[in-house]
This record gives sequence, C-alpha cells and structure tokens, in this order.
Amino acid sequence: MSQHDIGLIGLAVMGQNLVLNMANNGYSVGVYNRTTSTTDEFTEGNAAGKSITGYHDLKDLVANLKSPRKVMLMVKAGPAVDAIIETLTPMLDKEDIIIDGGNAEFNDSNRRTAEVEKSGLLFIGTGVSGGEEGALKGPSIMPGGSKAAWPHVKEIFQKISAKVGPNNDIPCCEWVGEAGAGHYVKMVHNGIEYGDMQLICEAYFILKHALGLSNEELYDVFSEWNEGVLDSYLIEITRDIFSVKDAGSDEYLVDKILDTAGQKGTGKWMSQHALDLGVPTTLITEAVYARCLSAQKEARVRASEILSGPETKFSGDKAQFIDDVKQALYASKLCSYAQGYVQLNAAAEEFGWKLNNGDIALLWRGGCIIRSTFLQDIKAAFDKNPQLENLLLDDFFRDAINQAQPGWRRAVSTAVELGLPVPGFSAALSYYDGYRQARLPANLLQAQRDYFGAHTYKRLDKEGTFHTDWIRERKTP
Amino acid sequence: MSQHDIGLIGLAVMGQNLVLNMANNGYSVGVYNRTTSTTDEFTEGNAAGKSITGYHDLKDLVANLKSPRKVMLMVKAGPAVDAIIETLTPMLDKEDIIIDGGNAEFNDSNRRTAEVEKSGLLFIGTGVSGGEEGALKGPSIMPGGSKAAWPHVKEIFQKISAKVGPNNDIPCCEWVGEAGAGHYVKMVHNGIEYGDMQLICEAYFILKHALGLSNEELYDVFSEWNEGVLDSYLIEITRDIFSVKDAGSDEYLVDKILDTAGQKGTGKWMSQHALDLGVPTTLITEAVYARCLSAQKEARVRASEILSGPETKFSGDKAQFIDDVKQALYASKLCSYAQGYVQLNAAAEEFGWKLNNGDIALLWRGGCIIRSTFLQDIKAAFDKNPQLENLLLDDFFRDAINQAQPGWRRAVSTAVELGLPVPGFSAALSYYDGYRQARLPANLLQAQRDYFGAHTYKRLDKEGTFHTDWIRERKTP
Repeated sequence: MSQHDIGLIGLAVMGQNLVLNMANNGYSVGVYNRTTSTTDEFTEGNAAGKSITGYHDLKDLVANLKSPRKVMLMVKAGPAVDAIIETLTPMLDKEDIIIDGGNAEFNDSNRRTAEVEKSGLLFIGTGVSGGEEGALKGPSIMPGGSKAAWPHVKEIFQKISAKVGPNNDIPCCEWVGEAGAGHYVKMVHNGIEYGDMQLICEAYFILKHALGLSNEELYDVFSEWNEGVLDSYLIEITRDIFSVKDAGSDEYLVDKILDTAGQKGTGKWMSQHALDLGVPTTLITEAVYARCLSAQKEARVRASEILSGPETKFSGDKAQFIDDVKQALYASKLCSYAQGYVQLNAAAEEFGWKLNNGDIALLWRGGCIIRSTFLQDIKAAFDKNPQLENLLLDDFFRDAINQAQPGWRRAVSTAVELGLPVPGFSAALSYYDGYRQARLPANLLQAQRDYFGAHTYKRLDKEGTFHTDWIRERKTP
Repeated sequence: MSQHDIGLIGLAVMGQNLVLNMANNGYSVGVYNRTTSTTDEFTEGNAAGKSITGYHDLKDLVANLKSPRKVMLMVKAGPAVDAIIETLTPMLDKEDIIIDGGNAEFNDSNRRTAEVEKSGLLFIGTGVSGGEEGALKGPSIMPGGSKAAWPHVKEIFQKISAKVGPNNDIPCCEWVGEAGAGHYVKMVHNGIEYGDMQLICEAYFILKHALGLSNEELYDVFSEWNEGVLDSYLIEITRDIFSVKDAGSDEYLVDKILDTAGQKGTGKWMSQHALDLGVPTTLITEAVYARCLSAQKEARVRASEILSGPETKFSGDKAQFIDDVKQALYASKLCSYAQGYVQLNAAAEEFGWKLNNGDIALLWRGGCIIRSTFLQDIKAAFDKNPQLENLLLDDFFRDAINQAQPGWRRAVSTAVELGLPVPGFSAALSYYDGYRQARLPANLLQAQRDYFGAHTYKRLDKEGTFHTDWIRERKTP
C-alpha cells in the first residue's frame, strides 16, 4: 500500500496545479474531491503517470498518508473549510496536520488554529499566491498557524515554492508566525497589490491625458521603467498590455476594455482592519475606493456631462515630466509598503505574533503578483535593522524618497492643476508630509472637541488632562 | 396617581438634561436610574419643583406611564441596552414604545427593532446630537425604527428639539426611516463632523505655516469666514479658540495643546461600512486616518528628525492665498457631504429604508455639531429634486464648486509644493476629478487582472465577458 507524503482535498485548478507541482518535485500525493468524477478525470488526465493517487473516500485517503499526516485543503474559503475540518478531525491522530491553503480571512485562521489544536492536532493556514501558473511552477507560500507543524511541511513547501536569488535557490516560503499570521500576510500582500495597480493606473492616466502618449509610447515608457527601481512583474505586464492589439484589428485592446474594476474583498478587509487597529493605511484604502468609483460607470458618465474642470494640456518639458511621474510612482509605492508594514507590526502586536519582516519581504520576492527587485531593498532594510519601525526611516529609503520628492511633488501638483485624479499619489504624499511633522494641527481639533463636548485635552508642557470653559474664556465677538 | 407623558431610564448628564428639557416644555416625566441615589439626588436637586418624578422600581415607573407607554433609554450603548429591553418587555403592553436614545451602532438598532416588534411592542432608535448643552436647550433628534411609534412621540420630540428658520419654529427633528435608519443618520452626522474638523485643521495648518499667520490673524480670518458660505458652528468655535489665552499667561492656549486627536469610533464605523457598501467615502476615511496619524506622536517626532521636505515659505499674494484656502475648504466640504449622502442612499438601498434627504439636512440645521447655513442649501437642493443622486449635480452646487475650483487647486498644489499635508483637501479633489471622468484608467487595471488571474473583462463596444491570452498576444520584448 502506498504511503503518500501529503494528501490534498479540493481539485479545482489551483488544487490540481499544486498537486502536479508536488509530484513534479518527487512527492507522492493522495488526492480527494467531493465530486469524485473530478478526481478520476484528474488522475486519468494531467496526473496520469505521476506519483498521484485518487481516492473516493476520505477515510481511504487518510489511511494512506505517512505519519504525521499532512492534509491540505484547497477548497472555497468559508464554511466549507470548517465542515471538512470537522469531518477530518476524528479520522486523524495526535499531531497530524491540517493545512488550509485557501483565501481564508485571518480571523477564521486564528479561530481554526485554536480549535484544531484543542483537538490535539496541528493547523497551518497558509497564503498561496501566484495564480494558476504560480501554483504549478512555483508560488509564493506564506504559512502560519501551529509552529510545531512547520518542520514537517517545510521541505515540501519550500521545494514547490518560487525561487529567487542569484543562484535561483532561495525559496519564497518561510514560516510567518502564529495562528492567522500567514493569512494576514497574504491579505497584506493583496492590499499592496491593489495599491501598486492603482499607482500604475494613475501614472498611465497622467501620461495619456497630460502628455497625450500613444500606446506605443506608453509601451516604451514602461519598458524603460521596468529596467530600473520599478522593475517588477506588474510594470512588466503593463508594458506587455500596451502591445496587444484587438483581435483582427489595428487598434489596441486596452482602449476597448470597460473601465470598471472588480475586486474580491481582500483590499477591503485590510482597510477595515487598519481602521480597527488605528493605523493609517491610506494609500491602499484609496485604491479600494478608486475601484468603487470606477464601478459607478453610469453615474460617472452622467457626471461628466455636468461637472467641468480645467484643460488637460501640459506645456512643460515632456521628458522631465515623464521622469516626475516615475518618481511619483516610486515614492508613492514606497509609502504604500511602509504603511503595509506598519499595519503588519500593529497586527502582530494585537495578536501576539512574532513576525520577521525581512522574511516576509523575501516571500514576496518571487512567485506572487507584487514580486519586484524593490522587495530586495526592503529585505535589506529589515536585515540591517529587524526592529525598523517604518521603512521610510531606513537610510536607503530615506535617501531614495528624498531624491524622488521634487519630481513627486511636481507630478502631483501638475495633476491637480490639470484636473487629473491622483488619489494614490496624493494620499501617499499627504502621509509622507504628515508623518514627518513633529506637530500636526490636531491641537486645534482637540480644542474643538473640548469646546463642544468637554472631551478634555492634554498639553505639550504639562502632564495631566485638562478642560477649559472656552465660552467663558473666549473674546466676545 | 400621576400619569407621566414619558419615562426615562439612565440619569447621566445627557439623560438628566433631556428630562429637564421635557419638563421645561410642559411634559410630565417619570425617571429611573439603576443606582437609586442618583435618582434621588436629581429629583431633589435640578429636577426639584418640576414635573419630574423619580422611581426606585422599574415596575412602578412603568405603572405610572400614560398609554401607549413611552420609555426612553439613555444608557451606555451595547449590552446594557439589550438587558434593559429584556427586563422591560414583559412589563409592557402591546404597542407600548421603547426608545433607545444612546449612540447605538445601526446594526444593533436594526436587530432591536425586529426583536421588539416581535414581542408586540414598538421600537425607536434615535440619534440625539448636541452634547450636554443641546440635550438641555434643544438637540438635533434623528428617530428611526417602528414607524407606528412616530405619531406618539412626534409632539414631545419636536417640542424639545432645536429650532431653525426665520421664526425659529422649524424643529430639527423629523422621522428618519425604518429600523436602524435613525442611528445610521447619526453615524453619518458624526462622520461628516470628522471631515469638517479635519478640513478646518488643514486650513489652519496651511495658513499658519505657509503664511505664518498669528492666532490674532487666524481669529480674524475665521471671523470673516463665519460670515459667508462657511458660516457654521465649527467655524465659529474655531474662531473663538484662537482668542483664548492660557490661564495666567499672555500665550494662546491652542499652542499648548498636545496634537494627538482622540476618537470614539463612529467615523471608523462609517468608513468600514462605506467599504462594505462599495461607495467612496474618501474624505471622512482620510479624516479618521489623520486622527490615527496624529495619535502616533512619538513616532512622528522621531520621523521629523530623519525625513526632510521643502521649505514652507510662500511668496505669492497673501490675500489671494487666504481666499484660495477658503475655496478649498468650501469645495472639499461640499464633496464630503456629497459622499456622505451617496453612502446614505446606498445604505437605504441595502436595508430597504425610504429616507428623505431634505429632511435629514433639516435635522442637522440646528442643535448639532455640524449645524450650518450650508445645510439650508443642501435642503433646497433635495427639495428641488428629491431623487438627486449626488449633491454635486445640483445646479447651485455645480456652479459653486466650479467657481471654487481654481482657488481649491491652487491651495492644494501650493500645499503639495510646500510639503504641508492636506489629506482631506486632496482626497476631495481626487474624488471630484475622478467622479467627473466618463473614463477612468480602470481599463488598464482590468487588463492586468485578466493577464495575471484570468479574471476576464468587459468591453466598451460589445456585450459579454472576455478573456485574452495576453502572453501569447504580447509583443516579444
């Protein structure tokens, strides 16, 4: 009887591709799907001739796994995961491992870690990023949960993951932290992805409307940007997109696509939790809102006929302005990652996780949508100072943003004068300018709150809590 | 035996002042407090000689109320409200009315309306705004819940509420809508309050740092602003604040106050629900985040020593620039209210409420923190067109923002060039510039999502859902 290294439940495309990836790396995999015909089609199709065995009965799958058993779920996030955990639990032995590789909300993974551990088993909630292709060829893997489970899955996870580094041998998979930490990091990854995409869209919109660049010219600009500090998967595919013609036509496809962005909710979750934590993740939230506004297409079309703005003709130095937009994109992206890490740190404190920020940057270096050389600089910053409280305070990034800021400011003020919306660029700039103020105008705000609601205030020069009868003290108008 | 018009439970300051307000308006009120000594102190103190009777036993209070009984709760929002409802329910008869006047979350009021109605009783969840002074002299009252209850409380609520209008006889109290609608409108009021305060802080910061205005000069600027379109309670108290000296000193108190803003959560709730609804309430969310950033005082002090920015010297026309900042404040405020109403409409659709937007503007005209003449213009806009989908599309506001926008843009671009954070002004401007675009850059974003995740896209020129194999179609780099 075969003894599989791992079992996998849920044979949608992501599940199938992960299984093939495992088999291609020399592992024996037992698989199960609720609709058993799917299992048969897979084992007789893409999986034929590989070390992959299908089961129609969960008990049989479980009975054929090496101990400690590792059962990975690739099913729809939500109640289905709880149902399978409930079914599996009595079939497993102490220290067997249940792995949820779906897009769970971190609160669910927090809860499931505790529940599964209470049953004497171990739990891993892991982010898996890179889409279908990544699942097959090497995804970014972000596991969290029961730390005792990690030594048992480390080898297989690191083998199947994306690799980076000069020798292409550094795996984009490392233990993230306790409980829901893995899914939290995946959520932050997705939120940062929203931000990166929004910033690219703003750059595109400015270059297209202020300078009137054609798709060919945009292709060249993004090609060039992909050579330097912006070198990343998203810049690369943006470049590619500007080269694709509509089938059977000489026109570019990008100009035919409806401008209403969809979303699946992780950017929203991240923003809502930033608000709960009280940390200003402004850029990603603006990116989520920008998708919401884009979705109101008909309302915008009506508004466009009623509301007016300035002429969008730019009359300055074209090459300089293209570089200004590049600086704006780079500096804004840096602020977005800085905010993302501030939120990660706050979440770690909230939930008692010990996160290694450098490792997290490494996880994102390859396999996933936000992969970039930029993440190497982030890893370097955290390697230099693992306690770094904000990426902007690292010497390298401090100098980088300082160098970028004249162009960044010109790009934003020009967009403002021309009437081009730049919610991401300007949210990032307001954050940078707010964060570097030793004194913000919240003193006035506290005075207002004390005036109308006796909320009291603190002072710069004395300890304690104070209240003033402002009406009595004010100058009589 | 006395037969009271209404009973009130919970004699903290807000509760006491509401009771006094009712008695001053000729109503007989029975009161109860869990700590009975509080009841005695009140009835023997401020309530002495008035038509106010204290009870030590809830049953006695209930037994002495006119039918249908009206029992108003002014207790801490949360489980305490549910506990009292549970206690009261068996004491009451069919069609008696339980009123929650605390700061409940709208979801709780949705639930409580259903639960109380199931018991055969009626429920009102009502926002009460105006602080302690408003409760005594005339608050803004925003009732929602069981519509059948409204005729029974209308007279008393409208009598005790704030009044506006040329003859000071229009009550700032009108039926809002079903279930949690009253508390939802109160939440939106508070969110708008966050936005208004943030915008005033940005204006203050720019005038102080770009122009170097003294507190005396700021007093004059805000005095002048309070005469025109910005005429409002918050501008008025801001003016007052700049006149108050630190006790026993010649220095101004506002400069002594610590710049860390507190918050109680309603702005956060509103932002989180905007994200759930998918509506871009960007300005209020930036205002919440600005409070979060202000709270990170020590981190900002450290950052201020490391991060640099441009010199904040302004060299242009001072009077013109003061007017530009005024235009920025006015136009941004308009966008914030427009966003707030868009969210209200989306919530009404989500929950099946029928809201009267003009009445809501009227509720806010007096008694509450955001009261202003501006709300009269909003009421006029909704009176002209009750179905108005966005305030910005009203003729009056369209012209107003069009007139304001050159100054608004100059104020924002100047702040950007000088390194002064303007998250509210620029979020509002990005919203305005985004909303009036028939085409936003989300076409590129959809192309990206289809490229890396096969998420598919729609087209401008054809019905249907499309997917492209971008890798096959792209120009080989």
